[in-house]
Amino acid sequence: MVKTVYVASLVSSIVVNLLFMIINIYVGGEWSLSWSSKAAAEAEAVADIACSGHGRAYLDGLVGDENEPVCECNTCYTGPNCSHFIPHCTADADSGDPLFLEPFWMQHSTSSALVVSGWHRMSYNFHDNTLISQHLESLIRKLHAFVGNAVTQDRYIVFGAGSTQVLSAAAYALSLANSSSSHSPTRVVASVPYYALYKQQVEYFNSEKFKYEGDAHTWRNRSESDASTNVIEFVTSPNNPDGLLNKAVLHGPNVKTIYDRAYYWPHFTPIPAPADEDLMVFTLSKLTGHAGSRFGWARMKLCLTKWYYTCKSIP
Amino acid sequence: MVKTVYVASLVSSIVVNLLFMIINIYVGGEWSLSWSSKAAAEAEAVADIACSGHGRAYLDGLVGDENEPVCECNTCYTGPNCSHFIPHCTADADSGDPLFLEPFWMQHSTSSALVVSGWHRMSYNFHDNTLISQHLESLIRKLHAFVGNAVTQDRYIVFGAGSTQVLSAAAYALSLANSSSSHSPTRVVASVPYYALYKQQVEYFNSEKFKYEGDAHTWRNRSESDASTNVIEFVTSPNNPDGLLNKAVLHGPNVKTIYDRAYYWPHFTPIPAPADEDLMVFTLSKLTGHAGSRFGWARMKLCLTKWYYTCKSIP
Repeated sequence: MVKTVYVASLVSSIVVNLLFMIINIYVGGEWSLSWSSKAAAEAEAVADIACSGHGRAYLDGLVGDENEPVCECNTCYTGPNCSHFIPHCTADADSGDPLFLEPFWMQHSTSSALVVSGWHRMSYNFHDNTLISQHLESLIRKLHAFVGNAVTQDRYIVFGAGSTQVLSAAAYALSLANSSSSHSPTRVVASVPYYALYKQQVEYFNSEKFKYEGDAHTWRNRSESDASTNVIEFVTSPNNPDGLLNKAVLHGPNVKTIYDRAYYWPHFTPIPAPADEDLMVFTLSKLTGHAGSRFGWARMKLCLTKWYYTCKSIP
Repeated sequence: MVKTVYVASLVSSIVVNLLFMIINIYVGGEWSLSWSSKAAAEAEAVADIACSGHGRAYLDGLVGDENEPVCECNTCYTGPNCSHFIPHCTADADSGDPLFLEPFWMQHSTSSALVVSGWHRMSYNFHDNTLISQHLESLIRKLHAFVGNAVTQDRYIVFGAGSTQVLSAAAYALSLANSSSSHSPTRVVASVPYYALYKQQVEYFNSEKFKYEGDAHTWRNRSESDASTNVIEFVTSPNNPDGLLNKAVLHGPNVKTIYDRAYYWPHFTPIPAPADEDLMVFTLSKLTGHAGSRFGWARMKLCLTKWYYTCKSIP
């Protein structure tokens, strides 16, 4: 009787040990985690905060009375869990904020998670002494090839802090490449209706090189007397705000065109063919929805950059 | 005899049970990790790659033949583990690249690790509809108070993509605030020797608002005939390249001063007192060494911003 109890206890204990061993081997990857586990646990704890599907909490976001992360609610929702709908509240249907893509990344939490070490890329430059990540540039080329929305073979790629910066840099770079010996400023135009930023940036920087003229069609009707004037036309295709697959209005030796291809992705428009204009600009904001990350790129046939940017050799 | 063996075996097994339980409770946080564990394991594996103290591997860095991350070596070192010193190699002692701070962050790997979810801050704006992180601004205020290098009470803070961008934005913002009705461009000066970027940015943007004049002392000697001309003086303190705690050379109602306080931290210079000039600019590059992250800020007495930046209410 006593022997049976001992045997039963021993067998049970050994089975428990075997279970522990199997579980530990199964999650063996986690056993080897050291310096990243605290940060990982903090991130997962914040992600677990339930906000009723109408908000989310962040590590660097709103905090409650005890410094604990709390929900940041979407427009028209409030309450500790964002479950309270605010009556008579109007939604902003005009904004381009791409939060409609947020559920996609939440569903792909494992493959989209990123652990950044405290010493990650501290240098000003990459290993090849450029400011362009070779790895990221390769991924962008693969992406365009996979989606089929842009030709990238034998084309240069440069980055910017959002396409906002790239669009401005493109205008400066093109003004240096202008063939005309005209000393008057390059005129900048776009077809109405157009994305307000083109005009805002030209006016903000107030460069001697540019002057915002307004509508491209109106400029074309005036252009006979201005044949020697350099012109940059911003073409947005698909257009913001009307979604049309616009093409350049102006042509000629003194005309340079910047194609803003922000929305030229399958989730916004059909893709008739891979685009291959001289200079095209894309943004992460409309591709993945990470508008807050501020990342955009230009893809171009000629190396038009100056100053800090240098075109990497075409792979 | 048999009973003794059973008792010994049972006691041993139960001790092992208890050990497993203690270990699992101790690392219990890791057991609850789900979506972040894969990214964490990848980051730790890359960090474990040994590069002889003369390089490091990155998740997004150089890869070998089988796509595995490999060492990116420091200048003058080569080989798969960066252990081979290149004879007659010259080191770059002129660069401001702050990699001397890298060992500090490697030693503080746990507290400096960061896990970014795939849906982190996708929106263009923060919850208060601004582009400035309240959390980060609070930390910067605490930092300045703790170090004692800048007065931040009743002062505004705005961010930029590196102090590079903040310095340019500051010049634009000050030119709008100029009281003189002079229509000639604002002259920009700095005392020789000065950081080349001030001149480079003014010339790159080629704005109608500015003209780079060169040395501040030379300008002062000419200034009697230019009393109505607006001037912006860049003062770097401590100075790049000579480390002097410079002060403004120019004064007067038409003079605005931008203090570049990039190096005003205890690891570069003694801190006689908390600085409190009208407009001061700082950069993360020289504080923590994260030059590649591109982050800087301005601290100012008046809200001088325009366009996308708005000054948050002073806490």
